[in-house]
Order: sequence, then C-alpha cells, then structure tokens
Amino acid sequence: MSELIFYTNPQSRGRIVRWMLEEVGAPYRTEVVGYGPAMKGPDYLAINPMGKVPAIRHGGAVVTEAAAICAYLADAFPAAGLAPPTTERADYYRWLFFAAGPIEAAVTDKTLKAVPTPEQRAFVGYGCYENVVDVLDVLLSERPYFCGESFTAADVYAGSQIAFGLMFKSIEERPSFRRYVDRIQARPAYARAAELDDAAAAAA
Amino acid sequence: MSELIFYTNPQSRGRIVRWMLEEVGAPYRTEVVGYGPAMKGPDYLAINPMGKVPAIRHGGAVVTEAAAICAYLADAFPAAGLAPPTTERADYYRWLFFAAGPIEAAVTDKTLKAVPTPEQRAFVGYGCYENVVDVLDVLLSERPYFCGESFTAADVYAGSQIAFGLMFKSIEERPSFRRYVDRIQARPAYARAAELDDAAAAAA
Repeated sequence: MSELIFYTNPQSRGRIVRWMLEEVGAPYRTEVVGYGPAMKGPDYLAINPMGKVPAIRHGGAVVTEAAAICAYLADAFPAAGLAPPTTERADYYRWLFFAAGPIEAAVTDKTLKAVPTPEQRAFVGYGCYENVVDVLDVLLSERPYFCGESFTAADVYAGSQIAFGLMFKSIEERPSFRRYVDRIQARPAYARAAELDDAAAAAA
Repeated sequence: MSELIFYTNPQSRGRIVRWMLEEVGAPYRTEVVGYGPAMKGPDYLAINPMGKVPAIRHGGAVVTEAAAICAYLADAFPAAGLAPPTTERADYYRWLFFAAGPIEAAVTDKTLKAVPTPEQRAFVGYGCYENVVDVLDVLLSERPYFCGESFTAADVYAGSQIAFGLMFKSIEERPSFRRYVDRIQARPAYARAAELDDAAAAAA
C-alpha cells in the first residue's frame, strides 16, 4: 500500500482532512507544520507552493486544497463509501464546489468586510452572502445530507465549513444548520479526529 | 439517453460549460436565461436557487457551479476522456478546486479591491493574489496541461478562468499564461463553443 502522509496544523482547515482520513480508515502518518517559517520554508513549499496546510502525499501524488483532498481520498479508498458512483455525482460535485467556491468566498469576504454592491453581485460568483446561506438553509431543511440520504465526502468538507462558520460566528445560527452540524459531528470518525487534533494542539 | 439541457447566458461563466459540452460531444439543448427578472424568477430559481447561470439538467439531475458541471460531465460521458481514472485524480482535483477556490476568490477580491492584510492571509484560503498567480506561473511553465500531458476538464475550467482573467485584465499577463491559453483555445471544441455563444449574444 502506498504511504499516506498528512501535513497539517491542528489550528487550520487541516481539521477537515483529519476527519476525512478518520472516515477513510486507512493508516496515515501526521506531520504537523508550524505557522511561519516552517510553513513558508523550502521543505514545505516543495509540497505546497502556496505555503498552506493541509496537504497530503499518497505514494507519488501530492494533493492540496481541503476539498480536493476530500474528493481524492473518497475516490482512492472506495471501500469507505464516501463518494457516489461516477454516474451519480450531480449533487456530490454541486455541493462540494458550492462549498469550495461560494461558501468559502462569501464567508471570507464577510470577514474581510468586502460586501459586493448590487451591481457587483452579477459578476461575483457567490452573488451575496445572504443568497448562499438561504440556499443552504433550504437544502439542509429538506435532506439529512448534501447528497440526500447518504453521508459523503461532501458532508465532511461542506459540513466542516458550516460548523466552523457557526463556531467563529462567520455564519449565522439557523436551526437547520445546527441540526445538520449536530448530526454529522455525532459520527465516531469526527470524534476521533477532534481528539487527535486537540491533543496535537495541546502538544504544540 | 437522458436529455441534457444547458441553462446559460452567453455573457457569463456559462461560456465555460458551453466549451465543456462541445468537448463532450453529446447532444444538448440550450436555454438562454436573461439577466434580471428571468434569472431571478421562479422558473429558473427552481433550477438554481442562487439565480445564477450556468446550470445543467441531465435526466433528473441538476448541476450548478461551472466547476461542478465540468467535473460531472467528464464523469457522465467517460468516452470523451476528460477525467483521469478515479485512482489517479490527485492533480485533477487539486487544480479544479484550486481554480474554484483560490483563483476565483483571489480574482474576485482583487476586483472588489479587498486585499487581505498580512495577518489576514493566514485565514484567507488563497493567502494573497500574488501567491496564486505565482503558483500557476510555475506550474504552467513546467507542463502543457493542469494534469500533465493530457488535456482534461480541469483545463476547461481553470483554463477558462485564466483566459477570462487575461481578457478582463484581472489576471496579469505572463508568458506562461499566454502560451497556455493559446494552446487550449486552439482546440476545435473551443472554437465551436465560442461561435455558438457569440451568435447567441448577437441574437439577444
């Protein structure tokens, strides 16, 4: 089996990937990368030239971007059942990319206090923050998981963004969001990941 | 065969999906959605509650988000050879999500004149615009396509963003970018798509 290495910092989007790795269940080795010189130094830049965590190395392949890593791992370890068959990926890709694009950008811009004007909403991919949360609210009021009845990698990634948003108050509380986050965080893999990352944070 | 419907406006990111559809080669029906009341009206909101184009309907499935549509079509029509096997998708997902996340957000924020401070770069997923273009510049100086030697759906999506960026001057000119855009836009499917969209724009 190809070696699987996880580059992360417990105070980062790496927590999303830790959870995904625990869902997958394959053995992996963790390398904690410190903020500052370590993350911006030549050794780590050779892995991710953005100088950002998380990243993974799997055999000869490197994957960066938390959403990409979730999608990659779901495909690379199909026994975990975290991606639908390739003939049935409409919702899967739709919501993975909705999370990587509109949710991420809307929440970032809200935090940066960069609010698109009504005219700018036409070219801004996410339109406006309110649209993004309203769409999520309707969806998560109607179904237990992003792809319907089955938990997938889209829930690990998009669900983590919603959970982070509620925690950091960059996404407002709505009953559908809270119920959804409680549902996905009840998974044993989530609890294992949180415990590992909390221990890594305490050790750092 | 399931019917394939393409909702677009020729002055939108729908041009990315038009190109992808022409690469795929399956028959599809185009529905042009006007900006304003049509795009924000109940009929279209039932397709995409974001009130944004593009979207596709394929049989009973709806996909929104240009990147998701490219990934979906590559999987749904494997004969076109636009996605690597699911066991070899490290670069494919990495750069699709890099384009949907960091490139999109960095270019949007540059246009909105929202520039993250050095402190904010730690939590902003794309870090800063300069990082994003530097990473792309190195990559596209080293390989002809995002996944190496083979053109994939990642080139349709990420390549379109680079091409739009050069056209609208929201991404600076670099020799590697210009050579790459010239390479991908030399494809017959690109030319067909551009002709169809230009005709639709002229008719509107």
